[in-house]
This record gives sequence, structure tokens and C-alpha cells, in this order.
Amino acid sequence: MSPFAKNLRTAVCSLGEERLIQAIRRWLGSASPQAPFGIGDDCAVLPASRGPQLITVDPVIYGRHFDDAVPARAVGAKLLKRNLSDLAAMGGRPTAAVLALTLDRRTTLAWLEGFYRGLAAAARQYRVPIVGGDVAQADGVVSASLTLLGEATGPRVPNRRGARVGDWIYVTGRLGGSLRLGHHFRFTPRLAEGAWLAARKELRAMMDVSDGLAKDLHALTPPNAEAALEPEKIPCRRGADWRAALTDGEDYELAFVIAKNADRDALQRDWRRAFPRTPLTCLGRFVRRGELPASAPRLDELHGYEHLR
Amino acid sequence: MSPFAKNLRTAVCSLGEERLIQAIRRWLGSASPQAPFGIGDDCAVLPASRGPQLITVDPVIYGRHFDDAVPARAVGAKLLKRNLSDLAAMGGRPTAAVLALTLDRRTTLAWLEGFYRGLAAAARQYRVPIVGGDVAQADGVVSASLTLLGEATGPRVPNRRGARVGDWIYVTGRLGGSLRLGHHFRFTPRLAEGAWLAARKELRAMMDVSDGLAKDLHALTPPNAEAALEPEKIPCRRGADWRAALTDGEDYELAFVIAKNADRDALQRDWRRAFPRTPLTCLGRFVRRGELPASAPRLDELHGYEHLR
Repeated sequence: MSPFAKNLRTAVCSLGEERLIQAIRRWLGSASPQAPFGIGDDCAVLPASRGPQLITVDPVIYGRHFDDAVPARAVGAKLLKRNLSDLAAMGGRPTAAVLALTLDRRTTLAWLEGFYRGLAAAARQYRVPIVGGDVAQADGVVSASLTLLGEATGPRVPNRRGARVGDWIYVTGRLGGSLRLGHHFRFTPRLAEGAWLAARKELRAMMDVSDGLAKDLHALTPPNAEAALEPEKIPCRRGADWRAALTDGEDYELAFVIAKNADRDALQRDWRRAFPRTPLTCLGRFVRRGELPASAPRLDELHGYEHLR
Repeated sequence: MSPFAKNLRTAVCSLGEERLIQAIRRWLGSASPQAPFGIGDDCAVLPASRGPQLITVDPVIYGRHFDDAVPARAVGAKLLKRNLSDLAAMGGRPTAAVLALTLDRRTTLAWLEGFYRGLAAAARQYRVPIVGGDVAQADGVVSASLTLLGEATGPRVPNRRGARVGDWIYVTGRLGGSLRLGHHFRFTPRLAEGAWLAARKELRAMMDVSDGLAKDLHALTPPNAEAALEPEKIPCRRGADWRAALTDGEDYELAFVIAKNADRDALQRDWRRAFPRTPLTCLGRFVRRGELPASAPRLDELHGYEHLR
């Protein structure tokens, strides 16, 4: 669905700011709480946090993260889910979100309604109140940036550092072909899995896979080490080979590291009981730099998605 | 300063994502704390809040909020200060911010460095750690959206509702001519004044003036009431008449409402002691709808800045 109107009477500029904000509140419905705890003041007011807080921000931009082929509802849902995937990687649960929208004045009300209704449906599903935001205008632009607040689900907040030589590399779900298969807007963020893993003492480090594992794994790799993956073990989505699985991107799966001496059978058994429908795969382990087996892919020579090139 | 490079070797696309993020960390310097409490993970981690939290989001967009005439440093500082002005209107103090940047690949490194150094200087001045963000690419766009987190400075968080017929309408500072005079990027957000007012029991409602008082006052006006302003009392910036003062916008002052029976002499005396250099002006009061004096400006007929028209 194209966001741009041919007839300006169907565009946001026909409404004006005040009626647009009223429409946004209607489209968000119960996903947006009433003021003073939501839209309509200079700031939204949130209750005090129960512990350490998590915050992340990610956009969706027309021509970059979506195009005319993607339904507007899917764009709105994807925006929230991309951010939830980042929160999952830190073992968090969401508490609130604010949205900054930038629109060309020719953006259709139909596209905008679809976008907000898709966002609202996902916000209700994942219990994330949309507490505020901003709408600004810029020629030729349709973009939305969502800032997500969350909290830790337990005493520990895992991060990307902590892996050591000998540790095991795991990934949830399957990789590759996300854009072709529509996974990039149909995925389920791994919130439950992330919270479960954050509570496991054998977890050393975790992140979400969004730019392709070949690129993203770099952030989990300790200095003086390399990731020795076994290509035949890489769980590929339909129609993707292991190269595609490592480089296509938009997977929104969790990659994580398990201590080398951990009881991995127990981990995998417990996982299957907790998440019988989410594949869990050990892809290999970290080895000392220079000791990469001949069979392991050279990740530096594969290119995940690189921004701003 | 134009954000766009003539020679691509001076543009962000010459750097690639990883080196760009390293440069951003360098430019932010001490304004950006070290991981795990800042840039470099899927989320930033913040300490637990001490009480109710405030959150707001506002952008700056090339061609809309700034152009080639504005120094890049001023753009970065303005982005933070716009958000601080919203926080001031709720009586809050800042705790942390995240930044979502959208850049054309031709954006110069010089512009970007200026933007980040200006943002960092303002972040240090107002003690706002920049804890994380996102950089995305879009053709022809240079925009930045900052989400600001804060906390209440006292037990009460004022908002825009609460005014009644007979209450007095006040404004801080002077109004009008902001763009012409460069006030829109040189202003000081009224954080101290906002916190002071939030603690005064005679305060009924408060907001920041950003789209012009004629438009913004609508949000403070109770149903069935109108704002009866005395035009000769309106504090005008150099070269602005009262019409300009009410409609130019970008004032970043506080408008607020004082209970009709309050001891206004005491309020004004205490104000002058606390803020000897910030003008405080009573502009008029709220009257019943239909009882507007002939001398009062018809605010509906004046146009403040309207977005998306």
C-alpha cells in the first residue's frame, strides 16, 4: 500500500493537526491510556519503575524498511516488534512506548489509519501502552521512530559481552530468506525466550540477530577469538542455504553464548519443555584467533547488511 | 552549514557503520556513559527511577526545523533543549535521553560532528546522559528525534488541565520574533522556573509555548471559557508587536495559570527573588465564553504555527 495520496482530500493535510491527533487517539484506542498518563501533555507521566530500566529506539522508514508492497498495518506492528526484539535480547519486558512520526503532507489517512491500527493491535498483544509521541512534517518522508521502555524480568540483565574461548554459540528459530518469505513483518519477538535465558546461570552473552548472523556475531565474539560455526548445523528457513542464513538479515532471532562447561543436555531438555515450538540450535563455539577449522565459514568475508554504505 | 557533501569522501558513506558509531562515541565523549549503561547493546540500562517518570519526544528535521543557515552545533543543542522545554512544563528534571538519527548517505562528517558536539555540550550543561540511539539511512533526509526521560522534582506533576473561569494567565520571558532573532536555538529551557512553579500551590495548569501562544493557550483554556488577554501587557521581543508575539512560535517559554483567589503579589515577589532575570507577566484571565471584552484579541482568528497543512 502506497502511503502517498493522488487526491489531497484523502491526505493528512486535509485534516489539520488537531483533528489528526484526535484520529490518532481513536486509532490507538485502548493501546493509548488517557491523560494525564498519556497523549495530550508536554510529557507523558509513567509510574515509578520497579527496578533497572531498559530503553531502546528503532525506526521504520519508507523506501528502507518497507515499501508499497507491505500493508500499512504490518508496518505499524513491525515497528513495535523490532524494538521488542531488542528488549528480548536483554531479557526485558516492555513497560511503555512513545512514537515520533515524520510525514509528507500527502500521506493518506487510509495508510496512517492502517499503520496506527497495526501498531495498536501489536501494543495490546504485547501489553505496551503507547503513552505519547510527536507528529512532524517533511517532504517526501514517511518514517516512524519508536522508543521502547522496559524493565528487567530478573536480577540479571544480560548483554553482548561475556563470551570466552571454548563457549558455545546458539541461535533460536531459523535464519535467512526473511524478506522473501515475509518473516520480517510476521515474526514473533522472542520475549519469553529472552527472559528465560536471562535467568539461566550458564548464559554468558546474548543479542538479537537483525543484520545477519555473520555480521552480528562480531559483537558477541571475545577479543583474540573467532566464531567457528559448523555450516551444516545452521538452521535455514525454506529456500535459504547457509550463506543466505548468515547474511540475509531481518531474522529477529536471539543469538547467545553458553559457558563451555555447562550441562548442555540439561539446557536443551529444559528448553524443549519451555518452548516446544521454538527450535534451539548450537552452531559451534568460539576458538582462539588463528585456530579456525578449515570447514568453518570466514564470517569476515560474508557480508551482512551494512548501514550507511 | 549544509549537511550534504559535494565530495563523497567527506560523507558518512565513506566511513561505514562501525567506524561511524566509534566516531559518535568520540563526539559525545563524557555525555555518553560507558556500556553496559549506554551505547553498544540492544538496549541501554538505566537505574531504577526514584518516583513517577516523565517522557517526551521531539525531532529536528532538515528543511523544517533548521536549514543551511543554522550551525550544526546549534541544531544538536536545540534538539535537546526543545525536549527540555517540554519537561520544564511538567516541572521535571531530566534523567536520560536516546537519539534516533536518519541520514542521507551524503551527510558530511563535519556536519555530523558539529551536531553531536553541540548535543553533547548541551547534554553536559543540563546533565542529561545520552544513553543510546539508532542511526538509519534514507535518501534526502537529515533528521533526528530525541526521546527524553525525566522525573518529577516534587510530589506534584502539573499538566495542561485545571484552569477555571476567573483564573489568571501568566507567561515567562518575552514572545515573538524567535526565528528572526535566533532565539529558537539560543533559548534556555525554563527547567528551574518549571520546577519552582510546580511546587506552588496556586498553580493550576502549565505548558510550554512552542507553536505561538494564540494557538497553544487553547490547551489551557477550560471548556466554556475564553482567554481574555490584554494586548498591551503582552511582553514582546525586540521588533515584535503583540500579534507577532502571539503567533510567531518557537518561544520555548512557559505559559501557566494561577488560581483566581491567589495572593498574586506574593507570587510575583517570590518570583523576582528566585528569578531576578526572567520576566514574569500576567496577560489576563479566563472569562466565560461569550463574555470576552471588546479589547481582547480573538485568538481563534490569529494563527499560530499549524503542522501538517
